[in-house]
Amino acid sequence: MSENINYPMTIAEKIFSKASGKAVKAGEFVLANIDRAMTHDITGPLAIDGFYEIMASKQEKKVWDPSKIVIIFDHQVPADSLNAAANHIKLRKFSQEQGILNYDVYEGICHQIMPEKGHVRPGDLVVGSDSHTCAYGAIGAFSTGIGSTDMAAVFATGKLWFKVPDTIRFEVEGKLPKMVYSKDLILHLIGDIGVEGARYQAAEYAGSTIHSMSISERMTISNMAIEMGGKAGIIEADEITAAYLEERIPDYKFDPYWKPDDGAKYSEIRKYDISKLEPQVACPHNVDNVKPVTEVEGTKLDQIFVGSCTNGRFEDIEVVAKIMGDEPVAKGVRLLVIPASRTEYLKVLKAGYVEQFMEAGAIVEAPCCGPCMGGSFGLLGDGEVGLATSNRNFKGREGSPASFVYLSSPATAAASALTGEITDPRKV
Amino acid sequence: MSENINYPMTIAEKIFSKASGKAVKAGEFVLANIDRAMTHDITGPLAIDGFYEIMASKQEKKVWDPSKIVIIFDHQVPADSLNAAANHIKLRKFSQEQGILNYDVYEGICHQIMPEKGHVRPGDLVVGSDSHTCAYGAIGAFSTGIGSTDMAAVFATGKLWFKVPDTIRFEVEGKLPKMVYSKDLILHLIGDIGVEGARYQAAEYAGSTIHSMSISERMTISNMAIEMGGKAGIIEADEITAAYLEERIPDYKFDPYWKPDDGAKYSEIRKYDISKLEPQVACPHNVDNVKPVTEVEGTKLDQIFVGSCTNGRFEDIEVVAKIMGDEPVAKGVRLLVIPASRTEYLKVLKAGYVEQFMEAGAIVEAPCCGPCMGGSFGLLGDGEVGLATSNRNFKGREGSPASFVYLSSPATAAASALTGEITDPRKV
Repeated sequence: MSENINYPMTIAEKIFSKASGKAVKAGEFVLANIDRAMTHDITGPLAIDGFYEIMASKQEKKVWDPSKIVIIFDHQVPADSLNAAANHIKLRKFSQEQGILNYDVYEGICHQIMPEKGHVRPGDLVVGSDSHTCAYGAIGAFSTGIGSTDMAAVFATGKLWFKVPDTIRFEVEGKLPKMVYSKDLILHLIGDIGVEGARYQAAEYAGSTIHSMSISERMTISNMAIEMGGKAGIIEADEITAAYLEERIPDYKFDPYWKPDDGAKYSEIRKYDISKLEPQVACPHNVDNVKPVTEVEGTKLDQIFVGSCTNGRFEDIEVVAKIMGDEPVAKGVRLLVIPASRTEYLKVLKAGYVEQFMEAGAIVEAPCCGPCMGGSFGLLGDGEVGLATSNRNFKGREGSPASFVYLSSPATAAASALTGEITDPRKV
Repeated sequence: MSENINYPMTIAEKIFSKASGKAVKAGEFVLANIDRAMTHDITGPLAIDGFYEIMASKQEKKVWDPSKIVIIFDHQVPADSLNAAANHIKLRKFSQEQGILNYDVYEGICHQIMPEKGHVRPGDLVVGSDSHTCAYGAIGAFSTGIGSTDMAAVFATGKLWFKVPDTIRFEVEGKLPKMVYSKDLILHLIGDIGVEGARYQAAEYAGSTIHSMSISERMTISNMAIEMGGKAGIIEADEITAAYLEERIPDYKFDPYWKPDDGAKYSEIRKYDISKLEPQVACPHNVDNVKPVTEVEGTKLDQIFVGSCTNGRFEDIEVVAKIMGDEPVAKGVRLLVIPASRTEYLKVLKAGYVEQFMEAGAIVEAPCCGPCMGGSFGLLGDGEVGLATSNRNFKGREGSPASFVYLSSPATAAASALTGEITDPRKV
């Protein structure tokens, strides 16, 4: 796509211009066409109820375009309660009646499945009824989380009102030191800007550090844009994006249009040199309560969770496996490893890591959100302390409101699994 | 052991004679010494509460013999609720304070762990606060389920009152036909005698069919003694038992004493020739509602569960893997495979079956009770129909009271996974 416009645009402005059919700037209100809508087993049933309320007076109660909706079962799988079982039944029925693609309980986490199965392209406007929908910014899309009621409107009309957001540009340079990963970088950015630092703005992550990262590493970065209040976390598509998409979308062709124009207007440009960054840990009970691992070393742990849409891919789990080697999980700590999708699980399995983890006394579960949202299994009890590679550590996020969750990279999680306390992976 | 007694005894009478220190007969009341007590994460916390009530007036609140108690976390693992997390914390604290061995959330199902880790010997009197404790009859023990309050008394005193039960002897002859397994046999016996047919009696399973079975196959038979009302389900230890135990208990020596005496008195002797037995299915909502698979073929299924203490061992899962081959799980049905212990899981994994199942679209979870008791995950919703290799199909057992559970062998489960409906494994 290339449009006849006479001012330089951010990626977000370009995407909203395409989606609304006219050149728009940050701050304008637009009725945008949605390219893809994703919902899951917790928020989906509410969206369905809302959809049928909207359609109550219509003869034919059909969604605007079933080929543009994807339903994914991941939060409570396999059904962990009667309520979950009922939700699953409702989603299966809706999928079938409307002709909507669904990924049932065995396939994996929505934010992994959407890019992995080729449902997202650079320049797309994607909405999902889950806050970490911003993850697909890693592919160069504007993707954002919406509520179930908004999703009901999308189901009915394929459109949604937006205020075109301002963009903050993060320019990151430098080579990440050994044992420092994209998770450490995004925790550092969030710690720096704060949980409200990018409120209702698009983040554009740029610079040589970002563009040397794999799509898996970029997903970690985009995934957590919401943790700084961001509406989206976009990374300009490059040849690495193209290679990822060519594997997944037969007719994909790289379009150089989906980059920010020279001279695009940013609300702020923040520059970082991360060549001396230390491993970072977000401490209870806020994602921006970020400290270098050296400040929290020795904190005793009851449970370590490696997984989630943030850090549950093969690359993440391989880091853990390589650091742990043939060593057992430390006595007194539970290690849960949950790959983000069936595809990622099979990669982990074929590399011998499922065997390694089970031999080490870890628990490897089938793909799902797991303990990340504290509702399904792997809950922390009163007073327990958990370390997780996931994206949120709010009070009670992983179980009891009287528990404590630290967030880290898979490397820090692995080093900590060997000792039972928060451990600097550079010292293992 | 051999005692100076002047009348022939059943195995149960011999065990209660040893346990009470005097020759006793069926019908007598005895205060018996417990050889081993097992509790788990659902009933254990209640037993601990009861124990401390009993010990309230004592200075030192110590269990009678910590080396004879085993605590196993299996029903709600990893913690599926705040309640479960609190229970786990309580059990860990009790284990540590009292010096009791515990198997934490990653190790497997209690009834698999107890024999697998060498905690049961022929002639032992074992109690467990779980109804399927009768499973260890497969090793030649008298093992039986008790309530948490009784377990509290055992923790405090190591003793428990029993009425020495009468024994029903099941003499089974004939070679099981192709695709007919020990699960089909026990379902047939239960269907024949009824759910109350052996109420407060010991079952002695005997005959060439039983003694040609592996310990895994025998465990399936003994496990379900409770489903005919039995207090225990004992199989005389033989060279197969000895080989199993020698691998697990360094000082184990076969003792020929632990067999029924010639002329022992039985309440009933039931003889079966099973050489023409068909695959059996227990239909909703009772375990004795047993029909040949041919009578329920074609029943549409929503979920198939392969696992549990009844049929979750390597041998069971291998049957499933071999029948399914490279075929995918049928569209519209969910297949859950949950090995009974970490050891069994690793055998399944090393044989390539975890990979096979995950490729087929099944869900393989870490060892636990899973959907068997309808509380953790894999619940059935309203109107859903499940087939399971587990031991109970009571209304609501696997989730909604408006769901339906059929019980079968792993072979029938595998055949049904390929078609999405109850399928005769002889026809695959």
